Amino acid sequence: MGYPDSIKRLIQYLMKLPGVGRRSAERIVSYILHAPEDEVKFLVQSIYQVKRSIRLCRLCRNFSESEICAICRDGRRDRTLICVVENPQDVMAIEKSGNFNGLYHVLGGAISPLEGRDHRELEIASLLSRIKQGNIHEIILAMDADAEGEATALYLIQLLKPTHIKLTRIGMGIPSGANLEYVDATTLASALEGRRSV
Amino acid sequence: MGYPDSIKRLIQYLMKLPGVGRRSAERIVSYILHAPEDEVKFLVQSIYQVKRSIRLCRLCRNFSESEICAICRDGRRDRTLICVVENPQDVMAIEKSGNFNGLYHVLGGAISPLEGRDHRELEIASLLSRIKQGNIHEIILAMDADAEGEATALYLIQLLKPTHIKLTRIGMGIPSGANLEYVDATTLASALEGRRSV
Repeated sequence: MGYPDSIKRLIQYLMKLPGVGRRSAERIVSYILHAPEDEVKFLVQSIYQVKRSIRLCRLCRNFSESEICAICRDGRRDRTLICVVENPQDVMAIEKSGNFNGLYHVLGGAISPLEGRDHRELEIASLLSRIKQGNIHEIILAMDADAEGEATALYLIQLLKPTHIKLTRIGMGIPSGANLEYVDATTLASALEGRRSV
Repeated sequence: MGYPDSIKRLIQYLMKLPGVGRRSAERIVSYILHAPEDEVKFLVQSIYQVKRSIRLCRLCRNFSESEICAICRDGRRDRTLICVVENPQDVMAIEKSGNFNGLYHVLGGAISPLEGRDHRELEIASLLSRIKQGNIHEIILAMDADAEGEATALYLIQLLKPTHIKLTRIGMGIPSGANLEYVDATTLASALEGRRSV
């Protein structure tokens, strides 16, 4: 004898969310059932609100509440420098580092042969059209340091080489605070390869 | 520069859900933004549907779409046998085992001094009132095998001893399929203690 139908259905929808398995879905249902009516209403309304008000910035394809996002609109930023990332979360991470004053371009994912996602599903045409408008001095590739990020970076390098714009990739190496003896071999190899004279 | 306000708000609400941290919340927002309108509508409607249609069974305090749940209504089940569990998820787990034909009583949690939850927040009064109605031959305590489950079981044993109803606890020991050498010491101790003559 299983859960009532309405719970079964909700569990199924919740399990479609990233990172939510059957266990978490069951715990979320239990939370929703015990939560005050108002809290559930606020959650649901904020889902609708996001769905209604958020679109992709016409320029950089990052989340935005207006046609052009706040970063692209900001006159103090260096418009000749574009940092290409996989996801909006990556923009937030780099913004938090406080170390970058250019613009972004969000691909909306990475090339993944395993999951059957190729370059046509990424925001590459919009990147090329920005480049074509001119006045870009450097493009920084800031993909994840995994196989998909690597495939995406290599594809973009091939594609962008003929433009003769300066192409760079963010440094790979030992993360800040790491204890050398616990760093994995691949990271150590990248760190050695990326060594700089001091 | 952070996320747009509506996204920040949704992230905050999502992070209240059990098992959802900042990372998962950001990934869920991204999923919601990219998902077809209909899918988001179905998710939201099924949240409302559950919130509207599910209550706690008047007898066993399990989730139910009617005043008395399907298990308590089922005439083929042994009404003299009550298995006391912490959560509705535990009922599902035991039902799946196909090995129990009695009724349940769902406490809605466990005693937890650390989280400041004591016996008054559990469905114990409703358990006592079921017992008082009479005709219960055995009460099986099926708490989690952790400190909170242990505290809850001990409290119930103290409380129910005077009723002279047969009280049992589910067996503890090596889980099915486990490799002895990888089983932790506490489990092994319980398994030895719970040994049975063959």
